[in-house]
Amino acid sequence: MTRKLLKTRSIAPLLRIDPASTLSLQAQLRTRIVEAINASVLVPGRRLPSSRKLASELGISRNTASLAYQQLIADGHLVARERSGVFVADSPVLVKHPARAIASRSHDDTASEARTKMHAQLATSVGFRCPPDWQKYRYPFIEGRYDQSLFPVAEWREASRLALGVKEIETWSIDDGDADDEMLIEEIRTKLLPRRGITARPDEILITAGEQQALHLLAELFARPGITLGMEEPGLPSMRELVALRAAEARYLDIDEDGLIVGPEISECDIVHVSPSRQRPTGVTMSMKRREALIAAANTNDFLIIEDDFECEMNYLREAQPALHAMTGGERVLYVAALSKLLAPGIRLGYLVAPADVISAARRLRGLTTKRPSPNNQRTAAYFLSLGHYDAMLTRLNRVCEQRLIALRDALNHYRPESIAIPPVDGGTAYWVKGPDGLDANRLVKAAEAKGMVIEPASDYFADPVGRKNMFRLGITSLPVDRIRPGVELLSQVMRDLGTETGDGRMAEHDHLAGTAVRKALSGATLLYKTVYGEPCTIEVRRNGTLVGRAGYANEDRDEGKWWIEGDRWYRSWDRWAYGESAGFFVAVEGDALYWLNDDGRVVDGAVIVSERTQSA
Amino acid sequence: MTRKLLKTRSIAPLLRIDPASTLSLQAQLRTRIVEAINASVLVPGRRLPSSRKLASELGISRNTASLAYQQLIADGHLVARERSGVFVADSPVLVKHPARAIASRSHDDTASEARTKMHAQLATSVGFRCPPDWQKYRYPFIEGRYDQSLFPVAEWREASRLALGVKEIETWSIDDGDADDEMLIEEIRTKLLPRRGITARPDEILITAGEQQALHLLAELFARPGITLGMEEPGLPSMRELVALRAAEARYLDIDEDGLIVGPEISECDIVHVSPSRQRPTGVTMSMKRREALIAAANTNDFLIIEDDFECEMNYLREAQPALHAMTGGERVLYVAALSKLLAPGIRLGYLVAPADVISAARRLRGLTTKRPSPNNQRTAAYFLSLGHYDAMLTRLNRVCEQRLIALRDALNHYRPESIAIPPVDGGTAYWVKGPDGLDANRLVKAAEAKGMVIEPASDYFADPVGRKNMFRLGITSLPVDRIRPGVELLSQVMRDLGTETGDGRMAEHDHLAGTAVRKALSGATLLYKTVYGEPCTIEVRRNGTLVGRAGYANEDRDEGKWWIEGDRWYRSWDRWAYGESAGFFVAVEGDALYWLNDDGRVVDGAVIVSERTQSA
Repeated sequence: MTRKLLKTRSIAPLLRIDPASTLSLQAQLRTRIVEAINASVLVPGRRLPSSRKLASELGISRNTASLAYQQLIADGHLVARERSGVFVADSPVLVKHPARAIASRSHDDTASEARTKMHAQLATSVGFRCPPDWQKYRYPFIEGRYDQSLFPVAEWREASRLALGVKEIETWSIDDGDADDEMLIEEIRTKLLPRRGITARPDEILITAGEQQALHLLAELFARPGITLGMEEPGLPSMRELVALRAAEARYLDIDEDGLIVGPEISECDIVHVSPSRQRPTGVTMSMKRREALIAAANTNDFLIIEDDFECEMNYLREAQPALHAMTGGERVLYVAALSKLLAPGIRLGYLVAPADVISAARRLRGLTTKRPSPNNQRTAAYFLSLGHYDAMLTRLNRVCEQRLIALRDALNHYRPESIAIPPVDGGTAYWVKGPDGLDANRLVKAAEAKGMVIEPASDYFADPVGRKNMFRLGITSLPVDRIRPGVELLSQVMRDLGTETGDGRMAEHDHLAGTAVRKALSGATLLYKTVYGEPCTIEVRRNGTLVGRAGYANEDRDEGKWWIEGDRWYRSWDRWAYGESAGFFVAVEGDALYWLNDDGRVVDGAVIVSERTQSA
Repeated sequence: MTRKLLKTRSIAPLLRIDPASTLSLQAQLRTRIVEAINASVLVPGRRLPSSRKLASELGISRNTASLAYQQLIADGHLVARERSGVFVADSPVLVKHPARAIASRSHDDTASEARTKMHAQLATSVGFRCPPDWQKYRYPFIEGRYDQSLFPVAEWREASRLALGVKEIETWSIDDGDADDEMLIEEIRTKLLPRRGITARPDEILITAGEQQALHLLAELFARPGITLGMEEPGLPSMRELVALRAAEARYLDIDEDGLIVGPEISECDIVHVSPSRQRPTGVTMSMKRREALIAAANTNDFLIIEDDFECEMNYLREAQPALHAMTGGERVLYVAALSKLLAPGIRLGYLVAPADVISAARRLRGLTTKRPSPNNQRTAAYFLSLGHYDAMLTRLNRVCEQRLIALRDALNHYRPESIAIPPVDGGTAYWVKGPDGLDANRLVKAAEAKGMVIEPASDYFADPVGRKNMFRLGITSLPVDRIRPGVELLSQVMRDLGTETGDGRMAEHDHLAGTAVRKALSGATLLYKTVYGEPCTIEVRRNGTLVGRAGYANEDRDEGKWWIEGDRWYRSWDRWAYGESAGFFVAVEGDALYWLNDDGRVVDGAVIVSERTQSA
């Protein structure tokens, strides 16, 4: 009877082992025993079964049980007494529960009082938020999230292992000072900055928790009532908020396809925040002419520039421009950048390059707000860079992103949902999409979400969102390339449905030509139109039934195909373009304007007929 | 001839291998090759020697050379061409140096302009700074730095390894959102907070980059013009600066041996910042009576409390008190704590517990300033806690710190340099030392530094340092226990020398008694005095030449010894006290006051003769 009772007191049921866990059996066993001690289920002095007995009860090897005990004894959770066994230590947990009973209570009572004293601006809610379960969506066209396959697992592990060497730990764990990791500073100074044309001394560089902290430190250092800060419109919402928190004046500067427009209002600024490599959020790159104009304006009007060198390492469609900081006159540029976005969600490291006295003040402010960014991550990143893993990662990442971005561009060009437009980009990870004027992007986001698609509306990026409700962003970091085309096709359909629902009658319907008239209008014609990303494209519709297409400013892209008539529809089939698939459209002509129509008689695309008469003459 | 030339082109000299490096030979080789490619010393297309040849030139194994090549090929830095060898890849580095020539220039030109726009307060310099080479000092009595032996190397490595599992990386590397690591939140919620008596829901907890970020977020949320913030005096300089940056009103509240004094001026506060577990910097613990008074005052006057639960896990001399947050009325307490200081220099993680709407606003502000603290470190810390390593580390750390703190206390009591006083503490890692009124701690710090000692002056901790120049702190985290006694002895000597130099005449000289008079005055007397840490101590000087000593409020410490006279000097030798060493002093008596004098006739210590007559009668 007693034996039976003892047997029922087996601790095995407490120590549930999960075969699917990523933890080793031994680590699981230790975790469970520590939990049971913490929860006072295993009390001090309690004798544990022998490792042999525990192993047989749990169906694990004796070695595993024995090693777990050994570690727990070494850690002081258990004690071994010779010849009598293993016991829970007398004071295994350092700080005991205070004697005072813990009343379980809600904090809601004080919420209201606290709220009255809280900074009103920070208590208000934000705009669009990516659904936390975005990974469950089939088409997550969302930026800043990365599909798992891209993370350099083995390489980061190697760097971590090196940074966990005993001598290494000494460099980052002992000193609570404000100095950054010297090795990381050297890697940035000698490898990353020279690629941007920048030379800097170590005391002109500060490591930050991502570029966001660099922007925060600069805002705190320079923005205050009486100071006017120029910002891009559209631009980074967090920058606007930082400026508002400091109660500085904001001046919004428009963006076009060449980046920030350097107009007369810039002379009113004390500081201008600009993202020239890849404008946040439109993705456009600032042209060299504009860069020179900006620097000249800064010199004339004596303002400082915060250069937010976002995605400077992701130019795969065109060569990178040097940083503003590297240009003549760049001394007044405070330079902000970050290690690749691919590392950013998990390891947030950025850097600020500025005159030594600005760095010194920023370092002091950093000490008041967060102290220096995780020194262990700084050293790991230093190894990751020095071993060449960082460059290798960028090469892989850019190859993948280039493929996806072109796939997105081509799909948008192919499906052209509701006459959208996208600006030209040199690279990056997203397209800024402008829809027809009547589009309500917030409604589109909701309708798309119902179809398994995550899309970011663009209105949050505008200080003045009035009349800017028709824009949204499509990112490519978080979905594989083969989802992009079907995703855009679906998006196109959602946009069409939405347009119909709203009864938006912008799209005039046209009467289509009969088959013979189509042949007469098109055979031998040359058609001129623009890609959705703004490049010119000509199509020769040859009398012999072939097509020759040329796209790009230098006709850099060329394709051939066939055309024919079936009923009243004009069909075409390119070798590569339009996914090499044949498609047929009704056709309408008004003057020299040609419209391709779908089955409902709605315009799908348009072109200008430039040489019908001459060729057919 | 050509062969010879080719031979001199060996790349081996570029690839210096350092046998003392902590990097493996293979990793060193890769680092050097990547460096040479980056520096354009190895140009694209350049053929590398065979792994066999390279190995023989460098005196390393062929396997090492071959593995290094393989990894560099996999990373895209090198390419292997069948039958012809290994070459530098054509575009090994992603972003090329911009064509524009890089003018090497100094930034100093703009420094002055930048400075005029910079926040004046942040541009000013700070007070005391620990020398960066403090590890070279023999007696680094400095807090916040840890000697290497204490870091839990193997345990942190195990947790890191687990957090680097493929599935784990997925949890922390994909999503750029603002949510904290759920596993870490659970560990804090269910293991750490209950020890402080605190229950909280997950949405009432925010992870911060150390406690400093939590304080910064609260300052930013609540402090502004028109809000009065009560702060401890002496207190945390960074808290004062945060309040000043927000231009809020500051009200300074004095500290005594029971912690914050809850006086009438507290009613003017909207928020009070307090460190009840271990007051920063004096180390005193707030008494339960004062805690109740503070909560009552908060309820009466409707103010919020920021509870800075500094070193709540380091109470080895007395039991910990529960947190203010856990007390009745604790709903108005915003609770701030951090993982052990031992981890803090390298892995900076803290947490804020507050009502959900405060947490939500703080999370938003964190997004604007730094985004969430390193997710990889969050997950590693979660494993470190769940495996029980954190508790084991604390147990070890507290054992070491207790030993050192008692050694420091006893040494201060023994050498009593220049009539210092230290407050009673329940644990912690430093003593707050008050010297004689005339002491200039800044001069002491410099004089001590010249003798190989690092000491922190206390004046930075005072908002109003006038009349507080005589205080300093002695920390014990960064020097081994056997350096403490000689360090204090040396300090005592430095203080004496300094006193002499300044010609500070406070220490009245006394004429000492002759040997016979000493015997008459002391034999059979009971002497009453106070330890330097404020505890009473009685010594019976028995006629038979023995001594009996009792110390502490409950006479908890007891020792015996011997006394005798040699010439005019009174000698004593305790069994344990005063390190069991004999020492002789001259003696002076004025009324019932007794003074022990050194060879120069200066007072070393004093006592009250309470029962000479009665015993001798």
